[in-house]
Amino acid sequence: MASAEKIHRAARRAVKARLDGYDVVLVVSAMGKTTDSLIALAKEVTPRPPRREMDMLLTTGEQVSIALMAMAIDAAGHRAISLTGGQLGLVTNGVHMEARIQRISRARIEQELQAGNIVIVAGFQGIDERGEITTLGRGASDTTAAALAAVLDAEICEIYTDVDGVYTTDPRIEPHARKLDVIGYDEMLEMAGAGAKVMHSRAIEFGKKFQVPIHVRSSLTDTQGTLIMAETPGMEDIVVRGVTLQENLATVVLIGVPNNPGMAATVFAEIARHHIVVDDIIQNIYDGGNVANIGFSTRQTEADRVRELGQQLAARYGFRGTEVDENVCKVSVVGIGMRTHSGVASRVFQTLADAKINIHSISTSEIVIGCIINQADGHRAVQALHAAFELDRPESTKAPA
Amino acid sequence: MASAEKIHRAARRAVKARLDGYDVVLVVSAMGKTTDSLIALAKEVTPRPPRREMDMLLTTGEQVSIALMAMAIDAAGHRAISLTGGQLGLVTNGVHMEARIQRISRARIEQELQAGNIVIVAGFQGIDERGEITTLGRGASDTTAAALAAVLDAEICEIYTDVDGVYTTDPRIEPHARKLDVIGYDEMLEMAGAGAKVMHSRAIEFGKKFQVPIHVRSSLTDTQGTLIMAETPGMEDIVVRGVTLQENLATVVLIGVPNNPGMAATVFAEIARHHIVVDDIIQNIYDGGNVANIGFSTRQTEADRVRELGQQLAARYGFRGTEVDENVCKVSVVGIGMRTHSGVASRVFQTLADAKINIHSISTSEIVIGCIINQADGHRAVQALHAAFELDRPESTKAPA
Repeated sequence: MASAEKIHRAARRAVKARLDGYDVVLVVSAMGKTTDSLIALAKEVTPRPPRREMDMLLTTGEQVSIALMAMAIDAAGHRAISLTGGQLGLVTNGVHMEARIQRISRARIEQELQAGNIVIVAGFQGIDERGEITTLGRGASDTTAAALAAVLDAEICEIYTDVDGVYTTDPRIEPHARKLDVIGYDEMLEMAGAGAKVMHSRAIEFGKKFQVPIHVRSSLTDTQGTLIMAETPGMEDIVVRGVTLQENLATVVLIGVPNNPGMAATVFAEIARHHIVVDDIIQNIYDGGNVANIGFSTRQTEADRVRELGQQLAARYGFRGTEVDENVCKVSVVGIGMRTHSGVASRVFQTLADAKINIHSISTSEIVIGCIINQADGHRAVQALHAAFELDRPESTKAPA
Repeated sequence: MASAEKIHRAARRAVKARLDGYDVVLVVSAMGKTTDSLIALAKEVTPRPPRREMDMLLTTGEQVSIALMAMAIDAAGHRAISLTGGQLGLVTNGVHMEARIQRISRARIEQELQAGNIVIVAGFQGIDERGEITTLGRGASDTTAAALAAVLDAEICEIYTDVDGVYTTDPRIEPHARKLDVIGYDEMLEMAGAGAKVMHSRAIEFGKKFQVPIHVRSSLTDTQGTLIMAETPGMEDIVVRGVTLQENLATVVLIGVPNNPGMAATVFAEIARHHIVVDDIIQNIYDGGNVANIGFSTRQTEADRVRELGQQLAARYGFRGTEVDENVCKVSVVGIGMRTHSGVASRVFQTLADAKINIHSISTSEIVIGCIINQADGHRAVQALHAAFELDRPESTKAPA
């Protein structure tokens, strides 16, 4: 949300839905750059603000929004009431700045809906058992919406955003990227996990768990966006739904690690203790099974810390050394169709080979094939794969694969 | 509060008090122009925002401040915790935008003090029995502070403000105005009621009721301000403590009102029903007691509404008419010394007469003498009275009156 005009637009939409006969619960995030401004304010005071006080600070952004939204709906002639996370009864586990929702009370919302109100809820926030104010992590207003939709048995959860839906890939990388009409929960989860920034993963998880369809659409237009929904048999006809790119990664290989039982566990416990996020772990053994190379990927910004930690671990546990490559990215293709169609992996590898792109490592899951490649090849890889799987063509015109 | 530097200054002061051995509870208001900006934001959305949602909106200002203050104290190396009105347990009567404090829980604050925290409380706000967010009216952070000081049996309530104390009169009107070292609760109440804008009346009332001394002082310097305290016998030696001026008033006279029993009650009930604030009611009877003129003062901005209402009432109850003078002000002298010293009123009238200032009407109470005069004479009247009662001379140099 940004200006008064945006608030009125959202208010009109909510009133229209109410007049169409729906009970409407509106989850609102902070306006425009509010959250960034509040973070900047905290940084002016201290470089290391306590997390509890950051939550106290940041939740004001959504509180301003809900008040203004209630005013706008009131001005449009409809009853409305705003509720903070605490007033609503959204209870979290109390971990500041990255709390998890533990439960949501239906009582207050249902009471306000029965009184004829459009209910406006502050996203991103909740309280713990002791009444402490907690937030769910950046961008988590989507999560609040999906969780509420689940608890209230909503027909649909609509997410109004600054894009008009989910695309086959990032249109800034591939101009032929196409908006998807539908996508499965699992596909969307993998797309989000692999770099598509449309939605918070936890919002999609709530949708999936409670089978609430999520409609991602533009806050500026009335056009249909993308429906994130349970898979239907027909959805598997599309082998690849989208291509994603995670940039600014680093790969790390711990070389010559003694292959004792429990060594990998020890190593990754140390890494976790340093709060380094790790992905795509690959282990090879050699020298008759006595020695292993353990590889993983992480964020580029962690490269220096990982290098230093690798040296310490090497000294302590008798490794040969650590190799870090800071200039890699990961391109992934995602699609539930892979479950029932073979040959997808080989088509990915052949496409990249034809484009003269070298693959450092490969990781696959049931519906994803991901390749670590040089950072410089990232955009070309996305474009090549997007073309190879004909993602620019509308689904209806494609022959079943 | 305004910038980060101001926050750090307040934080250092709180830490110093803590290191001096005091338990410290800090009540914080919104920063700089925050409240005005939030009101402007609401007005952008709608000219008539619901009062409940205004409270939801405005309380974010103090919530931002308490979070930043807790961060600053943490950065200064001391434990701190911020509490909203709701978390603290400040319960109000639920009237939005002008709630009254009903009770304050000691439990949470005492628990946090025992844990070694400096406790930072959001001023101006509380919740009602149902958890609805309410505010206490503009400038009411002082009230929160005084009420908390009372509940916690505090030794002192310090109010840090943008002036360095309470003055004998407004220094913008009389350059010889002098900062008072002490003032009695009742004198301060009358000064506040008669136009001195240093403090909220309700804050002073809490101080008086629970006998908590209130030290009004500058947030910019460490110099002593003014101590608002219980009267001591010596304080009565000063006949007049200060002179105040209420500008932009209007006087209204309802002429020829039939003097039936209950007529005045009927008239003022009508006026109250129109939410017109009335002061200084004067009634004269004439024509053998059958007819009265009823005069009162009100805000200049109400003049048109009062004139219109007066015409309606005249028609309904058989008055002769309504006279409204929109260009008056009220100059008052305040001092508990009046209780024991005679001749103060005549000195006031003589001073104004010497200055050729005409008095429209007079109202007195035990410790106040107020005169309605022409708006144009206001500043001259203040200067003349300030000189006549030697308010520019330090108290210690004055002979007992």
